[in-house]
Amino acid sequence: MSTKASQPSWKALVIDKRIRQQASIPADWLSVIEPHIPSPDTLDVSGIPDQCTELLSEREREITNTLDVQVLLAKLASGEWSSVEVTTAFYKRAIIAHKLTNCLTEIFVERALARAAEVDAYLKEKGEPMGPLHGLPVSLKDQLCIKGLETTMGYVSWIGKYADKDAALVEVLYKCGAVPFVRTNIPQTLMWPETFNNVFGRTVNPYNRLLTSGGSSGGEGALIALRGSPIGVGSDVGGSIRIPSAFCGLYSLRPSYHRIPYEGAVNSMLGQDSVPSVFGPLANSLSGVKLFTQAVVASEPWRLDPLCVRKKWDQDAYELKEHGGGNGMCFAVLWDDGWVKPHPPVIRALETVKKALEAQGQKVIDWVPLKHKEVVDNVGAIWAAGAAEDYRVTTQPTGEPVLATMSEDDNTVVESTFRPSHSDTVSAYQLWQLHLKKRELRKEYLDYWEATVEKTGTGRPVDAIIAPVAPYAAPPHGKNLSSAYTTVWNGLDYTALVIPVSRVDENVDVKLPPHQFLSKDDEDNYNMYDSATFNNAPIAVQLVGRTLEEEGVIGMAEIVNAALKTTA
Amino acid sequence: MSTKASQPSWKALVIDKRIRQQASIPADWLSVIEPHIPSPDTLDVSGIPDQCTELLSEREREITNTLDVQVLLAKLASGEWSSVEVTTAFYKRAIIAHKLTNCLTEIFVERALARAAEVDAYLKEKGEPMGPLHGLPVSLKDQLCIKGLETTMGYVSWIGKYADKDAALVEVLYKCGAVPFVRTNIPQTLMWPETFNNVFGRTVNPYNRLLTSGGSSGGEGALIALRGSPIGVGSDVGGSIRIPSAFCGLYSLRPSYHRIPYEGAVNSMLGQDSVPSVFGPLANSLSGVKLFTQAVVASEPWRLDPLCVRKKWDQDAYELKEHGGGNGMCFAVLWDDGWVKPHPPVIRALETVKKALEAQGQKVIDWVPLKHKEVVDNVGAIWAAGAAEDYRVTTQPTGEPVLATMSEDDNTVVESTFRPSHSDTVSAYQLWQLHLKKRELRKEYLDYWEATVEKTGTGRPVDAIIAPVAPYAAPPHGKNLSSAYTTVWNGLDYTALVIPVSRVDENVDVKLPPHQFLSKDDEDNYNMYDSATFNNAPIAVQLVGRTLEEEGVIGMAEIVNAALKTTA
Repeated sequence: MSTKASQPSWKALVIDKRIRQQASIPADWLSVIEPHIPSPDTLDVSGIPDQCTELLSEREREITNTLDVQVLLAKLASGEWSSVEVTTAFYKRAIIAHKLTNCLTEIFVERALARAAEVDAYLKEKGEPMGPLHGLPVSLKDQLCIKGLETTMGYVSWIGKYADKDAALVEVLYKCGAVPFVRTNIPQTLMWPETFNNVFGRTVNPYNRLLTSGGSSGGEGALIALRGSPIGVGSDVGGSIRIPSAFCGLYSLRPSYHRIPYEGAVNSMLGQDSVPSVFGPLANSLSGVKLFTQAVVASEPWRLDPLCVRKKWDQDAYELKEHGGGNGMCFAVLWDDGWVKPHPPVIRALETVKKALEAQGQKVIDWVPLKHKEVVDNVGAIWAAGAAEDYRVTTQPTGEPVLATMSEDDNTVVESTFRPSHSDTVSAYQLWQLHLKKRELRKEYLDYWEATVEKTGTGRPVDAIIAPVAPYAAPPHGKNLSSAYTTVWNGLDYTALVIPVSRVDENVDVKLPPHQFLSKDDEDNYNMYDSATFNNAPIAVQLVGRTLEEEGVIGMAEIVNAALKTTA
Repeated sequence: MSTKASQPSWKALVIDKRIRQQASIPADWLSVIEPHIPSPDTLDVSGIPDQCTELLSEREREITNTLDVQVLLAKLASGEWSSVEVTTAFYKRAIIAHKLTNCLTEIFVERALARAAEVDAYLKEKGEPMGPLHGLPVSLKDQLCIKGLETTMGYVSWIGKYADKDAALVEVLYKCGAVPFVRTNIPQTLMWPETFNNVFGRTVNPYNRLLTSGGSSGGEGALIALRGSPIGVGSDVGGSIRIPSAFCGLYSLRPSYHRIPYEGAVNSMLGQDSVPSVFGPLANSLSGVKLFTQAVVASEPWRLDPLCVRKKWDQDAYELKEHGGGNGMCFAVLWDDGWVKPHPPVIRALETVKKALEAQGQKVIDWVPLKHKEVVDNVGAIWAAGAAEDYRVTTQPTGEPVLATMSEDDNTVVESTFRPSHSDTVSAYQLWQLHLKKRELRKEYLDYWEATVEKTGTGRPVDAIIAPVAPYAAPPHGKNLSSAYTTVWNGLDYTALVIPVSRVDENVDVKLPPHQFLSKDDEDNYNMYDSATFNNAPIAVQLVGRTLEEEGVIGMAEIVNAALKTTA
């Protein structure tokens, strides 16, 4: 792990990068914000941005508290709010969020405001919006290259790497009239469901800073929860959009493989095409998730990304033509995955959704899991097939340690003890056997789902599954040890949409007496719970549909969401 | 390569299998056919089936000479021709074809006729056809499992393996009302562009039996060319549908990855998901290609195969909405791939198509190839990553030799000297690097194609590429050494449709003086040509469109085909 004498040590590179990041924040904003930043023992910081009234004007607070992206877009398209003022408002609030949770990586105020001005000029000149996302500030996970900007993805070895072109999705966003305005924090390697790396450090949960914001899109989670961005783009190879979304109380979509363009973005484990990572939106509103997805698909991204599926936005599917038009549907609740039983607040979220749907006349049955552990183990083995070599090659230039845990803040001084689960290197032939196993499991699950036509009474198989996103709400740092509840759908490539439901209430979500444990992991999970630790953390569910059923899943999520609002 | 004393040697297994195959042919058919089978020095046997008038009645000759699948289907759907009589007619003719070219593997007359009777009864009872392929006999490459039938795929080690369920595509064909009626020959491992294996031996070209029928779907090629089947299903991982199609004068489609269900079929190199093999139709008519593809897609195959793309038949795309409605298009001809220049008859085929299109007012420009050799080498390296181990594991139970060449009929006694190009075993991490290279090449080619918008004058990029299928017409056995002209499109995953154009005429397609060779391979290819050797072999072109553009490619092929018919 030694570096050549002639090169700066990796720690020196980090110090330099952090100084440059700090310098990229307008000094006058910073000086106004700093007095508002509480000491670490203030856990819930979600109310603080609105207290920064010296920085955020009343109008800026109105703008940033407009959670419904559809409303924001309407005001931007009409010119009632200019993109410059909307971008400025969100930028200021993003910096506040950053000082509270450490959620940002790249900060480029001037550039974003210049882009916003360009969009405003377009509207003024042409009399029409530039595109379906006209003027909208969009935050981006630190993988999405923007020409001319440094792209570290949390690797010390990538400090000083400047992108020579935009990622395809960034190109699409520009075409749609959007304003990419910040990039957000991630864990080293991206392969953790929390957010910590040697370059930028840790992102924390705005509802309880002792808890993780989730990962790997944890910067997005914290930022959007604090309303520092109206919508952001995360990526998900095992839950990395959905986990921060659930832990931070946001809507989000994990689309199927290759629906949203990935071309030109940086990533870990490049070439791992068996369980591809996908990009998708996180937002405070379901309208944001829908409008983003629709806009990207309508842009014909297959003209930019050779891996993108040539499949137009399917309005019939969105209107649920294949699901009885949205009436008299049959949902199924996954209460547990047969491996780890969720904590009380997660069960409460499922029960809340079930009751809300039933109150609307929808049918809700139970979903019995099928081989979830086998699917998750298969995905893990596929990742492990080449992960260790990938991490070694990437970190080798500077000798930064590969993290072995997310639990300690002094990770940066720990010599690498790479987690064993990611080092089962195999041959290509052995990888093929894992693919074969994966295909068999997917076929089995497909047949299993199709066979539910016998149970629904609708003449159709179950329309969608309602499932936990994790067996817990946001846990303390270093304690998010499994992503099984999300990874299973990556392995099966089912479209999944996260819907926030409520927050942990330590008085309501009391610890239950021990049950008959499903596994050692289940027992460990049971023992981890006490309601005080998790207090105030958001709780959510996933709505799970079929492969490449983004439109239908969004349509069904609208029904669930409306039912929740009606019941609430 | 020794086998245990208690087990029959692999040669004994072959003898037994061949006896059983022979016994599966109705004896009364065989006795009538045999006098018509000429000695091996009769090269062109394409006219022989129609001479077997004792076996094929006039009506049966009319049925089997109905090349247009749309016409066949109309007569079947109206009941003018019953499925039993159509299936009987094609079955008799298939047996003739088999005796001439050795194109069949599994023969199951009673079972097929029982199925045909079931379809006839359905029509009689319900007054409507069973589905879009009502009553149509369909031949299947030896990968497509049918419940209860032996599935050897040309491996001695698989003799005695009986399928316990239908492949998903067979299920779909049943739902569509079709009658699967024979299975067809392939090369050992499927990874050769000719057709020879230790179990069934070699399939030859009906237009010139010294030439190959191509491969790996070479049994389909010979069978359909002799009108022993109206339509067949082949598979294509590097050209295995298109090569026999071109060498035997048939229409065929290589769809993009995962458009047609592969689930439940046997294959070599299972789990090799980087360049997936795909199923597609071969037929004597373009209508067959269209109706098959439309029927399969309309069956919603994603409900049977978890890997199938959820993408409905796109009628707008078929009607060329994205290609100016089919008027004023701009095609581009790939004259050579920058590596090997095609023989004179292939160039003539390209010129014929160019002239025919221009006569219809379509524009035709040149297509300059981009890194075709790099794409093909990348695909080859991906296959080689695990091929040797796959072949070893598969052949190990009986010790049959892995073939090292397709050139000699005494291959069966050659000790395995596995071709070196398929034995570059690598690690999973190294395979990931090949994926990365593949993605980069696909992106480069996509951008390159999109950029042709500057050259077409249509406001669109080139609508489709017209390309050779191979640098030669069907070559002598063992001489089909490269599939680069087809494999390049597998690597890029572009939809490709083969259109027959003419036949080699030794008086027209004379050898040209040497050109400046593009490569050593080019020089070898030049030296291989003399017009007498290739005389009478069919020549064809590929029409190449975008990924998942099956509908558009079929629509454009109809325009090319109509232009050729008008000019002819």
